Amino acid sequence: MTVISTAADADLCAPLPVLGSDVRVPLVTGGEVTYAALDYAASAPALQRVWDDVAAYVPYYGSVHRGAGYLSQLSTDLFEQSRAVVADFLGCRADDEVVFTRSTTDSLNLLAAVLPAGTQVFVFETEHHAALLPWERAGDASVTYLSAPRTPEQAVASLDVALHGAPKGPKLVCVTGASNVTGELWPVRELAAAAHRHGARIVLDAAQLAPHRPVDIAALDVDWVAFSGHKLYAPFGTGVLAGRADWLREAEPYLAGGGATRTVARTAAGGIDVQWHTTVARHEAGSPNVIGAYAVASACKALREAGFDGLVAREQALLSALRAGLAAIPQVRVLSLFGEDSARVGVLSFTVAGWNSSHFAAALSAEYGIGVRDGLFCAHPLLRVLAGAAQDDPGECGAPDAAPGEASLNAIRVSFGAGTPEEHIDRFLSAVRTLIRDGAAWSYRAENGRCVPAPQ
Amino acid sequence: MTVISTAADADLCAPLPVLGSDVRVPLVTGGEVTYAALDYAASAPALQRVWDDVAAYVPYYGSVHRGAGYLSQLSTDLFEQSRAVVADFLGCRADDEVVFTRSTTDSLNLLAAVLPAGTQVFVFETEHHAALLPWERAGDASVTYLSAPRTPEQAVASLDVALHGAPKGPKLVCVTGASNVTGELWPVRELAAAAHRHGARIVLDAAQLAPHRPVDIAALDVDWVAFSGHKLYAPFGTGVLAGRADWLREAEPYLAGGGATRTVARTAAGGIDVQWHTTVARHEAGSPNVIGAYAVASACKALREAGFDGLVAREQALLSALRAGLAAIPQVRVLSLFGEDSARVGVLSFTVAGWNSSHFAAALSAEYGIGVRDGLFCAHPLLRVLAGAAQDDPGECGAPDAAPGEASLNAIRVSFGAGTPEEHIDRFLSAVRTLIRDGAAWSYRAENGRCVPAPQ
Repeated sequence: MTVISTAADADLCAPLPVLGSDVRVPLVTGGEVTYAALDYAASAPALQRVWDDVAAYVPYYGSVHRGAGYLSQLSTDLFEQSRAVVADFLGCRADDEVVFTRSTTDSLNLLAAVLPAGTQVFVFETEHHAALLPWERAGDASVTYLSAPRTPEQAVASLDVALHGAPKGPKLVCVTGASNVTGELWPVRELAAAAHRHGARIVLDAAQLAPHRPVDIAALDVDWVAFSGHKLYAPFGTGVLAGRADWLREAEPYLAGGGATRTVARTAAGGIDVQWHTTVARHEAGSPNVIGAYAVASACKALREAGFDGLVAREQALLSALRAGLAAIPQVRVLSLFGEDSARVGVLSFTVAGWNSSHFAAALSAEYGIGVRDGLFCAHPLLRVLAGAAQDDPGECGAPDAAPGEASLNAIRVSFGAGTPEEHIDRFLSAVRTLIRDGAAWSYRAENGRCVPAPQ
Repeated sequence: MTVISTAADADLCAPLPVLGSDVRVPLVTGGEVTYAALDYAASAPALQRVWDDVAAYVPYYGSVHRGAGYLSQLSTDLFEQSRAVVADFLGCRADDEVVFTRSTTDSLNLLAAVLPAGTQVFVFETEHHAALLPWERAGDASVTYLSAPRTPEQAVASLDVALHGAPKGPKLVCVTGASNVTGELWPVRELAAAAHRHGARIVLDAAQLAPHRPVDIAALDVDWVAFSGHKLYAPFGTGVLAGRADWLREAEPYLAGGGATRTVARTAAGGIDVQWHTTVARHEAGSPNVIGAYAVASACKALREAGFDGLVAREQALLSALRAGLAAIPQVRVLSLFGEDSARVGVLSFTVAGWNSSHFAAALSAEYGIGVRDGLFCAHPLLRVLAGAAQDDPGECGAPDAAPGEASLNAIRVSFGAGTPEEHIDRFLSAVRTLIRDGAAWSYRAENGRCVPAPQ
């Protein structure tokens, strides 16, 4: 029995209230249990505060921008205030722009679409696909994929060498703040310094960092930051790209449509002449998702007010208990790029000797009411780098997002955040131990490439 | 005093409950009044039913796709069920795909991004910018802009002639179902028949049609339909592109990122090899906006259950009263492409002799609590076609989205829908009459190109 040291520590703040914390789910073995959401790295539950703000606003929702009515003016103000709140949350410089997108994926695709001609992009192969793949599609950009470093210092040295040897011209480095697979923190400030030493710009993929740590764009000295509302307790379809305005203003609009246009007129030759806005509206064509933007701003305010000091202390206490608990189980191999003692946020992936990861994850859900994730986590090259850890996987239930013959790359990810009570970590560790010791209590079968409980 | 004939008609259904119907707003002249939302064509209020469904679901929100937990499975099912509900609402053919986007603008930009090489696009100059502008940016597509027709028959004849003379190769026609400026219905079925006669495909911009009329993709025989949740009483950041799968499957993914990838691997040469999904996931990279998609599906169900027969009868009764009331005011000129008696949805634009439209709209809001819209409605070329109607506009407060020297294009748009009570139409007509007869009770000044109440 693991006793979580944090539970008795009066100095730790309570979990922030989130929706769904009292949802009960059925177990295949009978009865039901409170759901333990341990897949925050994919999507976090909504903060109660965010939901309350959204619910209070929705009756006042109105068309933004050119609407003349009171609710339109209120909604337009709220939308622009939300932008200011996000800018403040990120510590934006005075001339930075905050573009509301739909997600981190969308934000990074937007940045890829505004790269100056001939931009050279540098990205580690360990990135999430959303940070790895947009760049080659961007006009004539060339992409250098850097091999996985095994220490933060190696990451900086590797980037330094690559940039040193690069020809003149615009350059962009894209780097994650915290890995969505291992949770490991990347040396963002040092990578930014290396980028700037060589005249390159840098964008921070903060999808996994922003929910767990304060992100200060000016202090980190990064050029852009991207993050998603749905990982920041605001799952209403909005993400953010914030940073330098120049590339954004000089590029073609992301989408063609209303809101991005200043004037549109027929030409004498029968064509269309368009003057696009040069402000942030340039890349926000169409009616904006006002509720989504307001929800993100509400989450920023809630995290700021709760205080990252307390949130980080609490998360690290839970993480310590989790790591200690897993370290005590010989069959468990925790995946790590920078070494098992490296600094992390509340995200951790592992494999279990003798278990197919999808099977293990299915059993955690069906028999213990614990929601984790299995697969390759949209980071296939990283999983291949880490694969040694997973070679015992017998592949019983298949691993659909692996390439043929690579089912053994599959892993299990447990991730948590500001709404996670200690009991979820405790139940998770207890379930892992019991499953490994006694096996699953139910039988499972493959269905659409996943493991699911078999009918009895 | 206009007596609205519909108010006493027991056969008409009641307005559908919407959020914000009891919101009270202050008047500059003192006191407050219930807000009359008459800008549905920009963004409609949320249906109470949609809100109730969202509120009931949010505690069960979970990460979709590879999440192994109960709430992840529930959310994934709900997301795919929402897709099926939308397909049913649109009368999709068995092999049509429903892609969740962020808006109609996004849907049409997605379609523009998947055009086969050398596609010739045909579009009337009267379209909303979102339907007018995406095509020229699409690879090597060529665009033919058709002049504004003055009857539905002219529209069909004009398209027929243009397609007849076009060289071989893939062709796409983009047409609105109902104008976002005049509300006039376009002859979609006949345009689709003309397109298909010449081997062209056709996409229906149903942003303004879907909230007001049943849209049956198979019966209209259009290839794609696009619409927005925020105009369909579901303002949670989601839109739809539904229709033929082939062009979607054969094109590059819309966004690069997780969810759209099947496998990603380093190549021997140091690059990256990506295998993309060929299903709808191809164009939905990143975590989907599950709440937004569910809200759209909820709205589809609510409208279907309320019954379009009753909704249309009610809207047309209100529209008749509105048109009759405005027709009785000599200073009002209603904008129309197809003639003042043409069939419309509940969207109507007009100018008032001697009044700047922004000034008039500001007074309707500040003195009567009525929210309309003024401007060029993201349809500048159409407004220029209709401009004769607005030449009396003295331009007192400026018209910021008109080109220099074209302030007189500015108009006022009133639009309504399933949640609009008769009282809003009555109050609007009464306010228009009073403003024209007595002038504004307050003074207004220009601010950022808009008219706003001046401090006293």
